[in-house]
Amino acid sequence: MKNTFLVLLFSCFFAFLLRGQNTPLNKVTAFHQKNKYALLNEYAQFLSLPNTMNDTASLADNARFIADMMKKRGIENVQLLHGTSKGTIPAVFGEVKVPNATTTLVFYAHYDGQPVNPEKWAEGLSPFKPQMTTNSLDKGGKFIDFPTQNTPLSMDYRIYGRSSSDDKAGVFAIINAYDALRQNGLTPSVNVKFLFEGEEEKGSTHLNEILDKNKTLLKADMWIIADGPLHASGRKQIVFGVRGDVNMNVTVYGAKRPLHSGNYGNWAPNPAWKLTRLLATMKDDNGRVLIDGFYDDVTPLSKLEREALAAIPDPAPMMQKELAFAQAESTERTFLESITTLPTLNINGIVSANVGKLASNIIPIMATVTLDLRLVKGNNWEKQVQKVIKHIKKQGFEVFDREPTNEERLKFPNIATVKVGTGYNAQRTSMDLPLAQRVIKAVQNSTKESVILMPSAGGSLPLYLFEEVLNTPPLTVPVVNYDNNQHGENENLRIGCLFDGIETMAAIMLLPTK
Amino acid sequence: MKNTFLVLLFSCFFAFLLRGQNTPLNKVTAFHQKNKYALLNEYAQFLSLPNTMNDTASLADNARFIADMMKKRGIENVQLLHGTSKGTIPAVFGEVKVPNATTTLVFYAHYDGQPVNPEKWAEGLSPFKPQMTTNSLDKGGKFIDFPTQNTPLSMDYRIYGRSSSDDKAGVFAIINAYDALRQNGLTPSVNVKFLFEGEEEKGSTHLNEILDKNKTLLKADMWIIADGPLHASGRKQIVFGVRGDVNMNVTVYGAKRPLHSGNYGNWAPNPAWKLTRLLATMKDDNGRVLIDGFYDDVTPLSKLEREALAAIPDPAPMMQKELAFAQAESTERTFLESITTLPTLNINGIVSANVGKLASNIIPIMATVTLDLRLVKGNNWEKQVQKVIKHIKKQGFEVFDREPTNEERLKFPNIATVKVGTGYNAQRTSMDLPLAQRVIKAVQNSTKESVILMPSAGGSLPLYLFEEVLNTPPLTVPVVNYDNNQHGENENLRIGCLFDGIETMAAIMLLPTK
Repeated sequence: MKNTFLVLLFSCFFAFLLRGQNTPLNKVTAFHQKNKYALLNEYAQFLSLPNTMNDTASLADNARFIADMMKKRGIENVQLLHGTSKGTIPAVFGEVKVPNATTTLVFYAHYDGQPVNPEKWAEGLSPFKPQMTTNSLDKGGKFIDFPTQNTPLSMDYRIYGRSSSDDKAGVFAIINAYDALRQNGLTPSVNVKFLFEGEEEKGSTHLNEILDKNKTLLKADMWIIADGPLHASGRKQIVFGVRGDVNMNVTVYGAKRPLHSGNYGNWAPNPAWKLTRLLATMKDDNGRVLIDGFYDDVTPLSKLEREALAAIPDPAPMMQKELAFAQAESTERTFLESITTLPTLNINGIVSANVGKLASNIIPIMATVTLDLRLVKGNNWEKQVQKVIKHIKKQGFEVFDREPTNEERLKFPNIATVKVGTGYNAQRTSMDLPLAQRVIKAVQNSTKESVILMPSAGGSLPLYLFEEVLNTPPLTVPVVNYDNNQHGENENLRIGCLFDGIETMAAIMLLPTK
Repeated sequence: MKNTFLVLLFSCFFAFLLRGQNTPLNKVTAFHQKNKYALLNEYAQFLSLPNTMNDTASLADNARFIADMMKKRGIENVQLLHGTSKGTIPAVFGEVKVPNATTTLVFYAHYDGQPVNPEKWAEGLSPFKPQMTTNSLDKGGKFIDFPTQNTPLSMDYRIYGRSSSDDKAGVFAIINAYDALRQNGLTPSVNVKFLFEGEEEKGSTHLNEILDKNKTLLKADMWIIADGPLHASGRKQIVFGVRGDVNMNVTVYGAKRPLHSGNYGNWAPNPAWKLTRLLATMKDDNGRVLIDGFYDDVTPLSKLEREALAAIPDPAPMMQKELAFAQAESTERTFLESITTLPTLNINGIVSANVGKLASNIIPIMATVTLDLRLVKGNNWEKQVQKVIKHIKKQGFEVFDREPTNEERLKFPNIATVKVGTGYNAQRTSMDLPLAQRVIKAVQNSTKESVILMPSAGGSLPLYLFEEVLNTPPLTVPVVNYDNNQHGENENLRIGCLFDGIETMAAIMLLPTK
């Protein structure tokens, strides 16, 4: 498999040589060079449409705007796809059928955005009045007017506004990638389908319904997800998976009312002591989870995936310095191994009564921990939760899924109420799939730096849906800058990333045959 | 020493026989039988004076009122004792010198009260408008007018008002005990001194100054503290000591900012895990503190004290049912042993980020525990704290008394910031002291039920001051009902307790010679 890397390196060098010539991708570049002012102005219009997650009317405006952009560019069969539940925000679909193409890709992005608190945005910024600056404001960027034809335009300029990066950039890059090909008389090598979701920030609440209801329309060989940021180095990357996630709340009990720690101390049971002792049985001081079978179901990385992981520059030393800690949770695994190859058992928070100035000299009535379990490929979230519950029982706790009654409190010395949230599994598309290898080559064709191949992100998204509902693997190909303030205030896009993103998506539409 | 108990039992029986006769204590009873209406009305006047802890002007009114009551009853040398600090609320002093008396007792109570929130008081009640009821309102008591001469009067009647129990009852019982003797032509067998403090609810902030500045005036053989409630059974009790107390806050650290539990989970150190593991090393699951030498300095109870403790009815089964838990912290010690003979290591509270609906999928930046250490006789609070700190260091933590710097965070894998509050030691007057035995006999003379002898209360008061500043042991002799709602709303006094209290205090003033 080492050969794969040599091929990649060679492709990279080859692509570099070709950049000066009249290749299809150079034509794409020429297209947006010519149209950049018009594209930026159209993008600004798109960003002016409010798109926060419960603003149904505005989201409908966004869907209409996208459908219009698609139709104007000759994309066929443009329509809104609804779920079966009432109140579903529709997804926008379109397609381009290519005669004789044997591969079909669905390009996915989402047009809804995170909630905004305009007061938290920097002076001069407003979430839905897109504003251009000469650079990131954090790096001393100055406000400028949107450029018109023949104004100088740097690729480091930024556009500020909600969803400028997350994820209208994905929608806009995909649509214009196809347009760039079309306007240059180029035909994609694959059938291209488009799906732009309107409920991603809510947790893709009805995506399963939309997929299930439109299985035939969405039949494809792979999904290309244009979402999330490029690598911190600015290099392009392909992310092959995400971790799954589920939360658990565990509460243990003491007496029914808070007790004076003098009058009852040493006698009444203290739930905070119970909980700390329980938790201490769950993880050792080198970060290894001690719950029986916790790591048993993990699907190991393939050789190719391990090599890809090893080839990624280790961000740990730099991050550790910025985050100011002396030692990672475990000395046995690298940062990338930690977030990619293993499930987690994280304490999101612990609360029992109060501390510091708010503390009283009492024996608390209860102690609660919120645990967050990230899952990797092979884990089943319900099974993983059961391992934890089994462990709690093994430590002598009677486990309930509700508050215990007085009778139960008087019967069982140790009671834990465990409340489990809704979870979902990890998703990981094998890097070894021939189609995955073709996408890698395509993206590598669009850049002279070697593409980062990340077997899985640390975070979670419900990408398992594509595999579970449609039996189609997804790959994530991010287009936006790392420092985009996604989800927070002052969200922004480096405009170079938008144009590079158009090239990346066009490169995938021109997928090599092997 | 078993003989002591036989003697007590015999005294008890003897006192019972004497109650029908013309003993000195029967004269005391006759005194308040005759004067009960006047006494209750004067007490109501006393309770009408607001006395919350920062109301300096009202507290001065109280001090004047008390001084007047004392002078009216022929108590000599009445004066206000000030501390050296500015703003000290003065204590009221007085004395009665008895020719040829070789023993001197100081009778202590306090006249300040806890803050009030009138809105929380039951309808018809107001903290400083004393109100009489036919019983506790909880037991169906009805409001009645203050009784006048010849109205029937039950000893179960209650007076509601702030400090009706805590601790104007102590002040009033002491003053009228002396008056009852005087009006019957009886002379105390001891020199009697009076000290009524005005800053107890603030933590006796300047009591050390008042004691230190007035050492000669306050020279005595023992202090009698009239404060706190009778035993829940209604039986009289003498409390020989209190536990000491000190609080510690321990904070451990993760990264400098909250991190996404997906993007960093398994890699960034989680302070909540660190703290739970640290705490789990401190106490086993049978309530035994595992810190080196934690129990080393404890002065064991004497044989007499152990016997006294064993003679007290065990309240645990009843309390456990009411508090709804199945098992005490330890199966190795009784309730009374737990709160009397051993220091505690209690968790008052733990907080790291949030739980439940407020939780986010993050790795918290810090985790804090507030520990409360109760101390028994023999413990030095500073030494006890050092044992805990030494233990934390032994677990591999670098200990600071302030927030660590970035450089320190990058240097030490485990950092704990330990902030120690101001503490004080326990105080316990030996039950074996001859003078203590005389007080026991005196109190036993005033009741037909055997007096409960409690070697130490579980709670804490700065009683060590009497020993440390004046080298004089204190004994606490409570007078008020157990269900008095002390410190809270609807504070009340069972009027029978006030008259019994007068008898108890008079009995001590008539201290037997051996």
